Amino acid sequence: MSETALAVHRAFYDAVETGDADLMATLWVDHPRVSCVHPGAVPLRGTGAVLRSWTVLMANVSYIQFFLTDIDVTTFPLGDDEPTMAVIVCTENILSGEGMSSPDAFAGGKALCTSILVRDPSGGRTAGDWKFWSRHASPIADLGTEDR
Amino acid sequence: MSETALAVHRAFYDAVETGDADLMATLWVDHPRVSCVHPGAVPLRGTGAVLRSWTVLMANVSYIQFFLTDIDVTTFPLGDDEPTMAVIVCTENILSGEGMSSPDAFAGGKALCTSILVRDPSGGRTAGDWKFWSRHASPIADLGTEDR
Repeated sequence: MSETALAVHRAFYDAVETGDADLMATLWVDHPRVSCVHPGAVPLRGTGAVLRSWTVLMANVSYIQFFLTDIDVTTFPLGDDEPTMAVIVCTENILSGEGMSSPDAFAGGKALCTSILVRDPSGGRTAGDWKFWSRHASPIADLGTEDR
Repeated sequence: MSETALAVHRAFYDAVETGDADLMATLWVDHPRVSCVHPGAVPLRGTGAVLRSWTVLMANVSYIQFFLTDIDVTTFPLGDDEPTMAVIVCTENILSGEGMSSPDAFAGGKALCTSILVRDPSGGRTAGDWKFWSRHASPIADLGTEDR
């Protein structure tokens, strides 16, 4: 089951990387209390506001790629064969820029993200019906401690 | 039911404010995959590591008070009378400092926090058995947009 939730989690990043707003729209629960926290920002609430923010981001970034590390997924209820929620914590190593035409414009970044996925309440219990309920991303302060 | 989850959520801040490590220890699920993200930091994993971090924080802060605003709580499964998870998003307006002896030392801060609470799997379905599974706090960038 955690593989299915992880596939939806990966599809989210695929949508951002390919600028696929339609795919993105299929990945979120349609509910006014859905929330999304972008790094350093206050929360967006409601599926419409969340999707708009991603559409704007995708429209303004010509190239972006996410390398996910330290992915940790837990499904709930704990130990249940038919979980209804998944909490996924991961590090996003982000590469973005102007693409091949200007290699110098590449920029790197790092964020820490907690995602909460639920089985779509309007859908059945079939595989692939996991959807995002909440996302909380935060900047990681580069204190250099890892390299020392 | 959301009142009960909110009471545990409030007890968490009471524990930090009063430096009550024993109370804090009762509020978290005891599990190696519990996670806690402090602002700007990488995630801590496991109840032991999470509790140690709060004990260190409480030992190093002589005065801290949280004013919570924009609290949003949703319980899952959505609409269920006996929810097993709660997602609480709130803004933490933080006042900390050296206390009355040095009023100039007071500092303010703002963080955005997503908390995930579950009914303690080792407990029954009695009131008050909500516990923290995950906490993700991030700094809010003060862009001054609210005041303009």
